[in-house]
Amino acid sequence: MRALQAALDGRWAHVREAARTQLGGGHFVAVPGETLDQARARITRLLRELPADPGVAAGFPAEYGGRSDPGGSVVAAEMLAQLDLSLMVKAGVQWGLFGGAVVALGTRAHHDAYLRDIISADLLGCFAMTETGHGSDVQQLRTTCEYDPLTQTFDLHTPHEAARKDYIGNAARDGRMAVVFAQLITGGRRYGVHAWLVPIRDQHGNPLPGVSIGDDGSKAGLLGVDNGRLCFDHVTVPRDMLLDRYGQVAPDGTYTSSIENDTRRFFTMLGTLVRGRVVVGGSASAAAKSALTIAVRYGETRRQFTAPGEQREVALNDYLAHQRTLLTALAKTYALHFAQDELVAALHEVQTADGPVDERRQRELESRAAGLKAAQTWHATATIQACREACGGAGYLAENRLPGLKADTDVFTTFEGDNTVLLQLVAKGLLTGYRDAFGSLDGWGRATFVAEQVRAMVLERTAARTLIQRLVDAVPGRDEEVVLTDRGWHLALFEDREKHLLDGAIRRLRKGAAAKKDRPFDIFNDVQDHVLETAGAHIDRVILEAFVAGIDRTTDPAAKALLSKVCDLYALSTIEAHKGWLLEHQRLTPARSKAVTAKVNDLLKHLRPGLPTLVAAFAIPDEWLNAAILREEPARQTIMATHDDEPLEPATATAMEVAPAQ
Amino acid sequence: MRALQAALDGRWAHVREAARTQLGGGHFVAVPGETLDQARARITRLLRELPADPGVAAGFPAEYGGRSDPGGSVVAAEMLAQLDLSLMVKAGVQWGLFGGAVVALGTRAHHDAYLRDIISADLLGCFAMTETGHGSDVQQLRTTCEYDPLTQTFDLHTPHEAARKDYIGNAARDGRMAVVFAQLITGGRRYGVHAWLVPIRDQHGNPLPGVSIGDDGSKAGLLGVDNGRLCFDHVTVPRDMLLDRYGQVAPDGTYTSSIENDTRRFFTMLGTLVRGRVVVGGSASAAAKSALTIAVRYGETRRQFTAPGEQREVALNDYLAHQRTLLTALAKTYALHFAQDELVAALHEVQTADGPVDERRQRELESRAAGLKAAQTWHATATIQACREACGGAGYLAENRLPGLKADTDVFTTFEGDNTVLLQLVAKGLLTGYRDAFGSLDGWGRATFVAEQVRAMVLERTAARTLIQRLVDAVPGRDEEVVLTDRGWHLALFEDREKHLLDGAIRRLRKGAAAKKDRPFDIFNDVQDHVLETAGAHIDRVILEAFVAGIDRTTDPAAKALLSKVCDLYALSTIEAHKGWLLEHQRLTPARSKAVTAKVNDLLKHLRPGLPTLVAAFAIPDEWLNAAILREEPARQTIMATHDDEPLEPATATAMEVAPAQ
Repeated sequence: MRALQAALDGRWAHVREAARTQLGGGHFVAVPGETLDQARARITRLLRELPADPGVAAGFPAEYGGRSDPGGSVVAAEMLAQLDLSLMVKAGVQWGLFGGAVVALGTRAHHDAYLRDIISADLLGCFAMTETGHGSDVQQLRTTCEYDPLTQTFDLHTPHEAARKDYIGNAARDGRMAVVFAQLITGGRRYGVHAWLVPIRDQHGNPLPGVSIGDDGSKAGLLGVDNGRLCFDHVTVPRDMLLDRYGQVAPDGTYTSSIENDTRRFFTMLGTLVRGRVVVGGSASAAAKSALTIAVRYGETRRQFTAPGEQREVALNDYLAHQRTLLTALAKTYALHFAQDELVAALHEVQTADGPVDERRQRELESRAAGLKAAQTWHATATIQACREACGGAGYLAENRLPGLKADTDVFTTFEGDNTVLLQLVAKGLLTGYRDAFGSLDGWGRATFVAEQVRAMVLERTAARTLIQRLVDAVPGRDEEVVLTDRGWHLALFEDREKHLLDGAIRRLRKGAAAKKDRPFDIFNDVQDHVLETAGAHIDRVILEAFVAGIDRTTDPAAKALLSKVCDLYALSTIEAHKGWLLEHQRLTPARSKAVTAKVNDLLKHLRPGLPTLVAAFAIPDEWLNAAILREEPARQTIMATHDDEPLEPATATAMEVAPAQ
Repeated sequence: MRALQAALDGRWAHVREAARTQLGGGHFVAVPGETLDQARARITRLLRELPADPGVAAGFPAEYGGRSDPGGSVVAAEMLAQLDLSLMVKAGVQWGLFGGAVVALGTRAHHDAYLRDIISADLLGCFAMTETGHGSDVQQLRTTCEYDPLTQTFDLHTPHEAARKDYIGNAARDGRMAVVFAQLITGGRRYGVHAWLVPIRDQHGNPLPGVSIGDDGSKAGLLGVDNGRLCFDHVTVPRDMLLDRYGQVAPDGTYTSSIENDTRRFFTMLGTLVRGRVVVGGSASAAAKSALTIAVRYGETRRQFTAPGEQREVALNDYLAHQRTLLTALAKTYALHFAQDELVAALHEVQTADGPVDERRQRELESRAAGLKAAQTWHATATIQACREACGGAGYLAENRLPGLKADTDVFTTFEGDNTVLLQLVAKGLLTGYRDAFGSLDGWGRATFVAEQVRAMVLERTAARTLIQRLVDAVPGRDEEVVLTDRGWHLALFEDREKHLLDGAIRRLRKGAAAKKDRPFDIFNDVQDHVLETAGAHIDRVILEAFVAGIDRTTDPAAKALLSKVCDLYALSTIEAHKGWLLEHQRLTPARSKAVTAKVNDLLKHLRPGLPTLVAAFAIPDEWLNAAILREEPARQTIMATHDDEPLEPATATAMEVAPAQ
């Protein structure tokens, strides 16, 4: 359905269409079964062959060859993710992390000197932040970079093994330079983490003096990305290689910055790099769409058993259990698509706005990016796994793509921020309120004193505010009177759950604070599960509101009607998933809870004929899907014909199947 | 704790100990990053180097060089699974599926001619049952084998592409012979699926005339196993190559069998091959133990953040969210271990019993094997994923083993029976009762008329019958009065849930049958989710009862006490997972449901110090774990020392972590 695809393609439809045509055919698609070296060589080659426009580099300033289109660059990355996740990550490292850091943290001199070569991929680089011993606690990085006024240079040093930079893309093979994050020291005082542009290899590709480079070697997936390790043994870095937009060191060593507080400065710097997280979330969903397209199309043609005593063909997609897995995952994928769309738009507005950064919107963007990254990557991991299993043994063969999608996306749940840590970021935003996000960064103890600021914030709509308010207001008083598909009821219930969880978390944190003033870690840790559930509930609401807003934007009546049914399924299957909590807190009666389950099954039956349409609307080219079982579709069809000519015994095997373990 | 390990090692402790010593060192361990050819060559070599005794071949009759020890052969396979899953599967294909079929379906002539070479691995073979188009519906295989009295030979033929044998281990590279399953036709009549011993390659390894062999190529994992495809173009098979224990064809083509009914005969033949399913379930749990050992030991030494405002070190394992993931998975792994132990013992008794097969016990064994295979393989997939994520970026590197464990075990959920299909087998057993398992194999419609036979069966205890009855009887009337850790209450609640679900399923099936007599598929499909949930509830009870029985067998007081706490955690976290249903059906009050969650958190706190002991009791040699992050443990320790010497800002980064996406 053309109109449905249009609704999904959204604001950057031209970028999506350009990718489908410019990157069409088999040239760029993932190749299963490659060795590490083969994969790395191919991806490095393809990186340079990628069309510049529209592309991942679209986010760079127009004056250097970009298009000043951050939103378009994210969408372009999502398209690459459907093609080959190694290619997407390689491009993300080069243009998003490395190039993005030079743009965001550097100043004109750095831009003039390097951006053109970075955009053209003549200069390949690394983003060297993570350390082996400090993945999540980046503010406490151990690498130091101390200024010496006599030589007017910095001394970059790795004090011990746990401080080595690790998992760094472009490091093991291709990187010539790296943006290295380290503790800035000058005049004997530390000013927190800053970034330097540091050459790591000469033109022949040999490590420069003092730089030792290791290889992370084989990984679960993403073989095309050359992740490695960097250690610095008192490496001399010229003063002007400090990316000094947020902090400057004068020749005499005097430190200056427009941001007084070290912590605040550090998180302001990190905030400018939020795009990477938006790309990872969107790419995870892009991969989930590929997996769902493969599994749904396979499930349409694959017959497992013949209906007992009937001549009717039964496709895998006809089984309720199959629909419970694939259709509900598909509904959530649709919901996440609209949430991602809205996030990309928000990112675009913030990063293209003139004048000073609106700090509140920036914080909101960071929180939204964190939450949706966690939601989308966990959803992708679960969905791709379900699709793999839905294709049985065929889903285990590399030729059917699913193993690659699974292995490549697996790391997404823990990079660009470990999902659990990111959910805590979201919860923290809710607990302390954006307004005082900076001031309150002194551990969880503090969270217990800001309860008052919370409610207003939580009540705030995240999308289509007036429409959603109208829907919520229209809900009659007693739940029992409301039909299960009432959108206002869904919205109110999601919001109510979030508020109640948040109130409870605040109450428990305050109680804990009173009891264990001296042990802030325990105060937080005792309620960590509750806090994480609160963040999850908030994200659920953000996603539902985005879906509702997306449907509201859709003009085609048929597409709108179908999307509305999909939204019913997303909302009710989410409610069903949380029925334990909702019953515990009397938000659902036992009878209504059972009715929700019945309604979900009912919706599955109604949506089942639309399954092929729903995946077709993702408009993923067949060459990109690159799955042998789809190429076999016609063959299967004829087979099924013969299948049904024969008189068959009833589906006895339903209960006695034995695909051998080999 | 030595006594804890003894409780886990159980009846076949000598087999486990022998494996730990005979297969010690690094010689047999999995090698990450191999190419397909390297992996296949290494595994084929190692297969022949495996010590014969005790080994996977222990199940063969003593007169041919085995030990007539089926239980021991399963445990030996579980140990191989901890070493290298490719090696386990390769051994399982050779000695379990191929050799096992020759033993179970063949007669003395076949045994005398081939068993010794099969045991010595001089004759490598395949188990060719699954077809591309018919993975689960094995009774409807399309391959035919028709007898011709003139030539006194069979004609083995693959009628069309969907009938090609697929995913066949040992086919792509090593197999010289195959046990091929096909429809037996003689005198113009079909007698259902039988098996033949068919040479597929000559001594030079070339395919024999009429046999075409394909390669399944690269897979998500298990690269060491050469899965392939077999097609037969009117291949001539001598009459005496029919494995004729259950069905014989005389020279003149007359068919005879001790079992009249074709369906019943077929499932009797399948029943003799149940061991493969028991091995896969146990191997999945073995891999989950390896993953948990790696993640828990890493979580003991890895510090993520320093406790705000404290000098105290915080290890990953100190976080409630981390415990919620790893400790609950560990508790279920313990529960499954005892359930698997009991299953292996049951298998051993049935397969070593003299005289005619006790059909009821055989059916019970098949149902138990199916249910525990599904439970263990899904648990392994989820647990290994959680362990991967718990190790962050390090968990994505091949050098840390988790990627290999994940990729290799992934297929377990869909081979040796797709888990969903297996759960239906379990449900079917409950619905129809073992007594009439055969007669009722005519589709789900029939299930609605046998409700009467059900209750007695469901009530039946699966382990330690008298002890469990005593515990259940001791539960006071009103739940509210019962402490949450009352084992009798756990047992009664698990059993109650199973019974209620089963009653409901029967009621709904009967109603459906009345309404849609003509459409048996819909009758079943409309309640498929309910039926699968019923099977799950049954398996939950089986597992809990086995855990209780295992604790009862444990004599050491300290080990017994620790196991009892772990059982509390398993029972209560399972109840928590099903709280939605329990609240819907008033089995829990909202207040008690919340109390269950609080109690789970409380148990996690109490068990946290025991975490290292609980994984140490698996007694997996370090060389087998083969994870670089564990070898780095001492290094980390010292790093952490320096870590804490420095004055640190509070754990602000808890909320702002950014491991870059590369």
